[in-house]
This record gives sequence, structure tokens and C-alpha cells, in this order.
Amino acid sequence: MDVQLAQQHKPDPVDFEYTTRDAIIYALGVGCKAKEDIRYLYEGAEGFMPLPTYIVAPGMKSTGLTRWPGLKVDMQRILHGEQYIEMFAPLPAEGTLRSEKRVVDVVDKGSGAVIMTEVTTYDATSGKKIGMQQICAFQVGAGNFGGSRTSPHEKKGAEIPKRPADKIVAEVTSEDQAALYRQGSGDLNPLHVDPAFAAKSGFGTPILHGLCTMGFAARHVLRAFAENDASRFKAIKVRFASPVLPGQTLETHMWDEGDKIIFETKVKESGKTVISNGYIILQVN
Amino acid sequence: MDVQLAQQHKPDPVDFEYTTRDAIIYALGVGCKAKEDIRYLYEGAEGFMPLPTYIVAPGMKSTGLTRWPGLKVDMQRILHGEQYIEMFAPLPAEGTLRSEKRVVDVVDKGSGAVIMTEVTTYDATSGKKIGMQQICAFQVGAGNFGGSRTSPHEKKGAEIPKRPADKIVAEVTSEDQAALYRQGSGDLNPLHVDPAFAAKSGFGTPILHGLCTMGFAARHVLRAFAENDASRFKAIKVRFASPVLPGQTLETHMWDEGDKIIFETKVKESGKTVISNGYIILQVN
Repeated sequence: MDVQLAQQHKPDPVDFEYTTRDAIIYALGVGCKAKEDIRYLYEGAEGFMPLPTYIVAPGMKSTGLTRWPGLKVDMQRILHGEQYIEMFAPLPAEGTLRSEKRVVDVVDKGSGAVIMTEVTTYDATSGKKIGMQQICAFQVGAGNFGGSRTSPHEKKGAEIPKRPADKIVAEVTSEDQAALYRQGSGDLNPLHVDPAFAAKSGFGTPILHGLCTMGFAARHVLRAFAENDASRFKAIKVRFASPVLPGQTLETHMWDEGDKIIFETKVKESGKTVISNGYIILQVN
Repeated sequence: MDVQLAQQHKPDPVDFEYTTRDAIIYALGVGCKAKEDIRYLYEGAEGFMPLPTYIVAPGMKSTGLTRWPGLKVDMQRILHGEQYIEMFAPLPAEGTLRSEKRVVDVVDKGSGAVIMTEVTTYDATSGKKIGMQQICAFQVGAGNFGGSRTSPHEKKGAEIPKRPADKIVAEVTSEDQAALYRQGSGDLNPLHVDPAFAAKSGFGTPILHGLCTMGFAARHVLRAFAENDASRFKAIKVRFASPVLPGQTLETHMWDEGDKIIFETKVKESGKTVISNGYIILQVN
């Protein structure tokens, strides 16, 4: 890993065009319900808007890491570790977004390397800055390259309070959730749909996308603390602790900490934590 | 109604472009399951193909009836009565289709008029004929115009045998099935997603698309009699008897009649027949 070389590389921005239909398919992919979420599922609804977490879709389409100068990336041994999103303006109902990707740091964790990238997304027409994502990818076995053990750029997760959760929302995912989320997000990794590919990757069955679980958790917080009004979403931070299987029940435990809602999400059937150290910042419109 | 004038009108064909993604969203819209239907849900699956009933999507996009010379159409009082589909070649995995719509007859039923249209769909690139649909729309209150009571063009439904069904397949629809099917089929009628619009149309809640129920029923027959191999689908005829609410269970009763599988589909919760006089013709590949 050559951190400086990776940081200096500034590839051209990548455009991402979407329609209300695409935003609705994403919303269905993260579990929006016809009875409660018509604002995100019907293009003619009053106040229709894409969910803010849909910004991961242009992120997915931005420049890949495999040929990034300075990085040694093996897609078979890379895990999505953490995700941060911050919004500066709502996503338009439809339009073209332009995203710039940068490697901000590579952290040496010994057992592996954390490749920390940031994607900044603009409205391609107006030039307005819409949002920023920080993605931490853990490259197994790529540590001990003499790098720093921490990064000043890191968006830290939240500490979970010791008291019982203030609110809990549970929701069953569909057995077809990953098949649908693939089409909504554009993350077409066969790991999420092909049993043979999943088996080769060491899983008994295709697993849900971590970012799909994040989308469910964000909806749980909005429902519990923001009257399901996604325009109040400002930022989210999550750490992916363990995989989810399509069909399992996601249970989000939430703590109201004034400026932020701290949360963690568990699989109800197994009790396992799947998102840890999460928080969402809500804003007043 | 001026039947001859309507029959003489020959509007230009309409193109419909689709990708594997679109075909997969349709397949999810008619209830395909990640565990059983990977061939229709994963673009990389061996033998991937769009479901043949996806041909209704280019049909939806073909020329509308509201400004058709010779017809008096009131969209608020028109019902989708019957549907026939016949395939001549499989739908390509993706591509551009070209569809021609014709009014073949208008039948005088007294209480209303049956507007009988046919849509013929070609591969726009090769020119190959892919399939034909016959759609019977019932225009309430438009009868007694002095027209014929029957039509030589009519594709008749099947008589349901008196014996108990040879096979029954039941499947629960999702409460979000109509919201998803809208995006898969391109039938964006708000009746299927907007509670206020549904109420104005006399329904307590948004109803499922009749063609969505047809897609489920076709899958049930393929699963029960064709080892879930959609390439064996040749033709289908259905009559829409009663509406379905998203979330209800569809139960298809099937009779093996050699050259055709006769079926009817009921809502399990209410016992009501929702598709009557149905049949599917299977072919040997």
C-alpha cells in the first residue's frame, strides 16, 4: 500500500442518472411499506422524495478501487466495514448526480488494511453539493505495511448507552429482499443472489447487503423519532458487525441523545448485532 | 361507437426498450422467489430469461385508446375484462420491442361495450414476431349502440372441469406487491398505490393489478406442470372476475387437460374467484 500515491489520485467524476422509478425501487429494496411509506413509493404523492440513503447508489457507480494507484485490492478478501453519510441538500426527485471519489487514508490494522474513501456527490445540473459518504473497506491480510494505526479523517461511531433502549422497532425482511435491493441500489455482487457464488465465498446462502440493513435501520430511526419525515435526515454512521440473511427480522434499538439518535440493529432470530455503534443526526426543517 | 372506423385506424408501432434489470423487477412484481426462481431474478443465472408474461409491459406502452377514432372511451368507467397472450418466440434477455395495436372488434353487451384490441410485438432489431396479446376492455354504460353481441375474433376462456382440481398452488402476495408491480410493468395507474384515488374509484384500499394476479397464476401453472421452465409457456387466457388486495393469498386450482392446463385462481381468505375460465398451453421444447 502506498498511501500518498493513493491520496494523490484524482479520477474524473462519474455521472449517475436516475428517475423517480429508480428511487422507488430502492425504497422498496430497503423495506418501505405501501401502507406507511407512500411518500417514498408513489411518484405522485405529496412531498415525494427519494430516501436520503439512496445516495449510496451513485456511490456504488463511482470509480472502483481495483485499479487505483497505490492500492493493492483483492475483491475476494475485502469487507465493507463502516459507512458514513452526510447530506447537505435533499436528493432531487430525479436527475443526474455527479460523484467524485477520493482515497483519504489507508490505515494499518495489522491483520488488514482499512481503505478509507470519500465520495462527494453533486447535482450535475445545478452543481449543488448534495452529500458526502465515507466508506471504510477492510482488506483482509493487507496490513503490516508500515502505515499509521489510526486516521485523523475517521468518522467515529457512537458509544451505546448503558441504559435500556428508549425505543425499539422490529421489521421482517423479505426472503427476496436482497434480490430486490440489488436492482434498487445497483450493487450487483452475485454474493447476494447466487447460492453457488455465496457458497464459494464461505456463506451457506446469499446474504443481505450491509447497506440494505443500513437503509432499514435509517427508516426505523426516522419512523421512531422524526414522524417518518426523511427530509429531517442529516447524517448516519454505521459499523457492519455481522451478516444478515434475507428473511430475518431486523430489530433496531434506539437511544435518544438529544443531538443524535444512537442505535444498534440486531437479528431478532439469532440475537446477533449486525449494525453496531450507529447514530443518526436529525435536523429541524 | 363506430366499429369500422376503429378497425381501420392503424397507428404507428411503439418501441419499448428494456434491460435484464427491468425484466427482473417485473419478475419480482409477480412474486418470483429468490429461493426457487433464480433463473428469472439473476441476470447471471444459467438460462436467464424474462418471464413470457412480461410482454404485457410493451403492451401497456403501446398506443392508448382514449383518442382512438371511432371509440368513446371513459377511463374512469373502463375495466380490464380478459387477457390472452400467445408467444411465438422467447423474449430476449434485453432489447427493444416494437408493438402494433389494432382494434379488432367492439362487441355490444347491452350494459356496456367490449373493446377488443390486439397488440402484436416484434423484436425491433431482428423483426422477429415475439408474441400477440388480445385485451378485452369493458366500457361500462357504452352498450346498445346497435353492434353485434359476439365476435368471431374472441379467444374463448376454458370450461372448468367438474372434478376436483388435479393440483393446487397457494402463494401469499406482499402488502407492497402492487407498489412493486407498478414499477415492473409500467402500469402506473394510481388506483394501485394511492389510497385517496382508490377511495374515489369506490375501493376501500388500493387494489392489485389484474395482470399481476395473472403473472402469479402463470407461475403457479409453470411450477406445477412445467418444472418451473418458462420456455415451455405457449399461451394464456384469463378472465378477471374480482379484484385482489395486496397481501391476500392467491390459490390457483389446476386441471390437467392434456393439451392445456385449465385453471382458476381464488383469494384464499375470502374464497372469491379472481381469475375464472383460465387456461395455459404448454409446449415441448
